[in-house]
Amino acid sequence: MSTHSDQSAVTVLGLGPMGRALAGAFLDAGVRTTVWNRTPGRERDLVERGADGARSAHEAVAASGLTVVCVVDYDASDAVLRSDAVTAALKGRTVVNLSADTPGRARETADWAAAHGIRYLDGAIMTPTTTIGTPAAVFLHSGPEELYQQHRPVLEALGGSHTHLGEDIGRAAAYDIALLDIFWTAMAGYAHALAVARAEGVTARELTPFAQGIAGILPPLFQQSAEDIENGGFSGEGNPITSAASSMAHIVHTSEAHGIDAGVMRTAEGMVRRAIGLGHGTDGFSRIAEVLGRR
Amino acid sequence: MSTHSDQSAVTVLGLGPMGRALAGAFLDAGVRTTVWNRTPGRERDLVERGADGARSAHEAVAASGLTVVCVVDYDASDAVLRSDAVTAALKGRTVVNLSADTPGRARETADWAAAHGIRYLDGAIMTPTTTIGTPAAVFLHSGPEELYQQHRPVLEALGGSHTHLGEDIGRAAAYDIALLDIFWTAMAGYAHALAVARAEGVTARELTPFAQGIAGILPPLFQQSAEDIENGGFSGEGNPITSAASSMAHIVHTSEAHGIDAGVMRTAEGMVRRAIGLGHGTDGFSRIAEVLGRR
Ligand SMILES: NC(=O)c1ccc[n+]([C@@H]2O[C@H](COP(=O)([O-])OP(=O)(O)OC[C@H]3O[C@@H](n4cnc5c(N)ncnc54)[C@H](OP(=O)(O)O)[C@@H]3O)[C@@H](O)[C@H]2O)c1
Ligand SMILES: NC(=O)c1ccc[n+]([C@@H]2O[C@H](COP(=O)([O-])OP(=O)(O)OC[C@H]3O[C@@H](n4cnc5c(N)ncnc54)[C@H](OP(=O)(O)O)[C@@H]3O)[C@@H](O)[C@H]2O)c1
Repeated sequence: MSTHSDQSAVTVLGLGPMGRALAGAFLDAGVRTTVWNRTPGRERDLVERGADGARSAHEAVAASGLTVVCVVDYDASDAVLRSDAVTAALKGRTVVNLSADTPGRARETADWAAAHGIRYLDGAIMTPTTTIGTPAAVFLHSGPEELYQQHRPVLEALGGSHTHLGEDIGRAAAYDIALLDIFWTAMAGYAHALAVARAEGVTARELTPFAQGIAGILPPLFQQSAEDIENGGFSGEGNPITSAASSMAHIVHTSEAHGIDAGVMRTAEGMVRRAIGLGHGTDGFSRIAEVLGRR
Repeated sequence: MSTHSDQSAVTVLGLGPMGRALAGAFLDAGVRTTVWNRTPGRERDLVERGADGARSAHEAVAASGLTVVCVVDYDASDAVLRSDAVTAALKGRTVVNLSADTPGRARETADWAAAHGIRYLDGAIMTPTTTIGTPAAVFLHSGPEELYQQHRPVLEALGGSHTHLGEDIGRAAAYDIALLDIFWTAMAGYAHALAVARAEGVTARELTPFAQGIAGILPPLFQQSAEDIENGGFSGEGNPITSAASSMAHIVHTSEAHGIDAGVMRTAEGMVRRAIGLGHGTDGFSRIAEVLGRR
């Protein structure tokens, strides 16, 4: 167990699947890495790979100038960081919180950090554990630019792309929320589609190549929607909202005819019918974002 | 206006955005093309490009051995095909219905066609109008293999990939429903994400490249989910359902704090909480498909 503080050393708090992936990537990159997890035992193979296993969270943060926290959410990171011993040990050091939560929680944590002389960056990880340490990883960061630049070399040991989104500490979480919104809604749709397909005698394996094709047509449509929103155009020429509503009704009908709950699509259809009721039936689907955002 | 019937000729009924794209691609490929739409006037530029504009639907179907129908749904295609004059004119000819609807409606239409001596194929188009006539178009077909092979050369004039999914006439619609389920759920997520991002001061243009990155991580996750389902594995090692529930709660909270309806994500979260309540919290997200499909 090392107790010295070192600028090119890092402490990882939280050894769930993602924390373990982060610690592993730091080790692979030759960064001196101290690890700790609330429930002991999860550090074992990381210690075998060269990590220092700390006996407590405050001992862990004292070992490095930079602490990366990656636990389930900010209730969990508060439980770890806001003990008197850890808060005291963090004074003058930097915390990067890569746990996911809301922009509000990131802002509140920044206030807490400032009040205790702790330097604070917020971040979000947009790709699965398997990408960490590879070029496919995507990290978002927000908070003081200078602080980010200072720790960037160590953070870049995690591989992938790192984007500093700005000084507003809530910005990484705002992107994270919006991107996870797309991700989990899409995954919910995929899970439902697999259930409906199975009821129709189509296996997951048969559907998957075409499902992957659907993922492939999303990027240009995202681009088109974004342009529609920025220009206030909302052209439904190629694909009016009424056509979406019709498809959604077919999906609900087919699902429920098989006794499969279609709640997510029912709710999405309701959202679309509301936009049609407001007179936007011939607009494009991007109109939905505008209607949702109305005050 | 031509009245002869020709094996390498095609009639397109329905000149909405997709019907127009189909007719345009047939024309570009040099296929003799007759067009008709319920509301007159939409055929004009197609006629300028060389299409024959029919004065009635029955005149239109009499002009070709193969009729492609592409209207909003099967209520609409029934309204066009099931008049006495059109049904009589179709006798001994082939209809390919590329309108979207449920597998049940496709099966019912096949029964109607058989009762009237009409040869019938069902199909679905999985890509936007802009892909028609290009390699990016994706067409699914189902119904009698021999009939499909006979008309395949003309259908392939539409460009893209054509897959015959089997003799069960409902199969193209079953794939269509499942794939549109993924598509429209994802688009609903994207529209909601744009609204939440905007409320957080993040523009659609700023979010889009990262949103496109999210679309990019879906294909391998779809593959993984499909394998989980086929093997009954449901491993949540890298990403347990509880973690999804936590993210979903953050999204709902952030959205509603801005006064933005989060109904779709609320319903998805409910679906996930139900799986957790059934004891599957440490499983992977693919477990959701299994729980949804339970009898
Ligand atoms: N896994 C992915 O693919 C992925 C991708 C992108 C982002 N993320 C984000 O990364 C973060 C970590 O995710 P994960 O996959 O590692 O698994 P997770 O299940 O979200 O988090 C597990 C970690 O949180 C800790 N924890 C939970 N409650 C705690 C508390 N009250 N006090 C202290 N520690 C607590 C756990 O400690 P114990 O072992 O003691 O329970 C464990 O270390 C999450 O915010 C997640 O959204 C994950
Ligand atoms: N657009 C796309 O990107 C896309 C992609 C894949 C699949 N599709 C599918 O292609 C089909 C056609 O879509 P679309 O984009 O062309 O637009 P649409 O709005 O779905 O359909 C418009 C067409 O349906 C006709 N129609 C509606 N009700 C009718 C009725 N009762 N009797 C006769 N005709 C009727 C319209 O005729 P009028 O002009 O007389 O109203 C028009 O020709 C749909 O099933 C759609 O799901 C479209």
